[in-house]
Amino acid sequence: MIVNGKHYRTVWMEDKTVFMIDQNALPFKFQIVAFTNYLDVCTAIRNMTTRGAGAIGAAAGFAMALAARQAPNEEFLVRAKQEIASTRPTAYNLFYSLEKVYQKSKISTEEAIYEAQRLSQENADQGEKIGEFGATLIRDGMHIETHCNAGWLGFVDWGSALSPVYKAKRQGKSVHVWVDETRPRNQGARLTAWELYQEQISHTIVPDNAGAFLMAQNKVEMIIVGADRIAANGDTANKIGTLEKAIVARYYNIPFYVAAPSSTFDKNTPNGKHIIIEERNSEEVTHITGQDPKGNNQTLLISSPGSPAFNPSFDITPATLISGFITDRGIIPATSEAIKKLLE
Amino acid sequence: MIVNGKHYRTVWMEDKTVFMIDQNALPFKFQIVAFTNYLDVCTAIRNMTTRGAGAIGAAAGFAMALAARQAPNEEFLVRAKQEIASTRPTAYNLFYSLEKVYQKSKISTEEAIYEAQRLSQENADQGEKIGEFGATLIRDGMHIETHCNAGWLGFVDWGSALSPVYKAKRQGKSVHVWVDETRPRNQGARLTAWELYQEQISHTIVPDNAGAFLMAQNKVEMIIVGADRIAANGDTANKIGTLEKAIVARYYNIPFYVAAPSSTFDKNTPNGKHIIIEERNSEEVTHITGQDPKGNNQTLLISSPGSPAFNPSFDITPATLISGFITDRGIIPATSEAIKKLLE
Repeated sequence: MIVNGKHYRTVWMEDKTVFMIDQNALPFKFQIVAFTNYLDVCTAIRNMTTRGAGAIGAAAGFAMALAARQAPNEEFLVRAKQEIASTRPTAYNLFYSLEKVYQKSKISTEEAIYEAQRLSQENADQGEKIGEFGATLIRDGMHIETHCNAGWLGFVDWGSALSPVYKAKRQGKSVHVWVDETRPRNQGARLTAWELYQEQISHTIVPDNAGAFLMAQNKVEMIIVGADRIAANGDTANKIGTLEKAIVARYYNIPFYVAAPSSTFDKNTPNGKHIIIEERNSEEVTHITGQDPKGNNQTLLISSPGSPAFNPSFDITPATLISGFITDRGIIPATSEAIKKLLE
Repeated sequence: MIVNGKHYRTVWMEDKTVFMIDQNALPFKFQIVAFTNYLDVCTAIRNMTTRGAGAIGAAAGFAMALAARQAPNEEFLVRAKQEIASTRPTAYNLFYSLEKVYQKSKISTEEAIYEAQRLSQENADQGEKIGEFGATLIRDGMHIETHCNAGWLGFVDWGSALSPVYKAKRQGKSVHVWVDETRPRNQGARLTAWELYQEQISHTIVPDNAGAFLMAQNKVEMIIVGADRIAANGDTANKIGTLEKAIVARYYNIPFYVAAPSSTFDKNTPNGKHIIIEERNSEEVTHITGQDPKGNNQTLLISSPGSPAFNPSFDITPATLISGFITDRGIIPATSEAIKKLLE
């Protein structure tokens, strides 16, 4: 997508170098980091220089390809694979890409690099497909609300929830996006707003609390969110607060869509009850990091000292509250049958 | 209520001095400020050293009594009344107290002081009554969620939404409170958490986004919130995000109560459509103030530079979503008939 008028991907490989947008510096600073040692890519995945399932998957593939370039011998490749696998232990896409590139690296370095590039392109293409299908739901002048960041920064390009917005814009439609700030980590206010600003799409950041207020006033015509995992029955795990928006949207009869590549559907998880919710550090609630007037990052205490906080990172939206899934293979209803067919 | 083991009111008058808890310093510092000139009390109301309808009303009454002490002549009193009235132009309780004390000041300084003390006591008594009625809804071991700060800091003592919790505790019941942090100004995380900590009531701060997550897991048995204004039909204006909690509570069949003194009911506003919603500065969303590791207050930018934000301060919860009103005259259903009877 576009940054300062130029096209970028979140992560890419050229010759013997892996490049990525430094997402830890966003939204205050746009900078590209470059690595020629696979171990540095591992560090970048670990410290969240790049984040989001799609971007992590591509970065892992490139890291493996880089390792093959560095020293294409069995021992080195096995060690590299282990090292890369240990960066983010729960990211499914990471293991998928890593395994594929590792297998090719045993044939030749060229094959490994080709495979890493192919997987990266595949992720970008899936995002674009989601955009094409999703854009059919968007009318000119529509107001769309989104939660968290399911934009291109979490993928190689295009994204999931925001991809239909980007496609609609390229089709000449005017769109306005209500951006939930998405406490506690503010991915909406930090990343989604940054993406939309760069793409010159009209948008407004709102406190998460303002969702029902906007919906009550008919100022939201559709909600599109991303997904971390979708169970076989359509129950969807996504960023904390998604469930709340889905319930409020149902109360006001506003369409609520989940956008995700088909790889996010997990046929081995029968329903939402089987998805374990990660509880994150409570300091993400009691403290916040931002930029001071001098341009330095600082962290402040923003709650009463001594009071405990609880920080569940995801919630589960039941399939019954979801109007449909926007996937790279089409828009499908949130039913077991449709998901089964999608994955066939 | 209790602070550091000792009983305090938010604002009080002794001899020729008005005292108040400095709410701008909370939750990081507990300090009492003292004024002997009514103009300093005006400044304290204006800069929100004291805030909340009940506390502002009492402070305005004390300011007028102080003016009477300073110079009980007609010209001075009229000027003082004008000055006090100009501090917070929309606070109904302010004008109510001010007028009453002003009328008495024309009789004698003693009468003015007596009236200011009486009005302050009346506010504390109303809070306690709300607590007594509300506590009948609280079972031992209950988990209650609240939004924003409708505790004693907004009143002279006791508060509205938190008063039933304080009463229940004094009755020997164990209660746990889920405290919505209440973006954008974080009154939950800053003030409600501070009050509960001081009262040694078990509580946990949660991001506003976590409400539905908790309710879906049966971890919330009742919600109690305060109110800024209640229309004749029961539609209730309260802090942004209240409507969202009410809708989610209805979805999960969780009782949703609004606690408020009878003075909050406005028989001249037929329903919520007639309540104008204040839009506040968008910097309250894009920036945040907190305490740095050295103990200094700082303000940081926490969203993408250049992106606009929208900051509605209240929303309207329709009467149909409210299980009942906890008032100083009893618990009533959210109907026009019950409200009419309450105000007779």
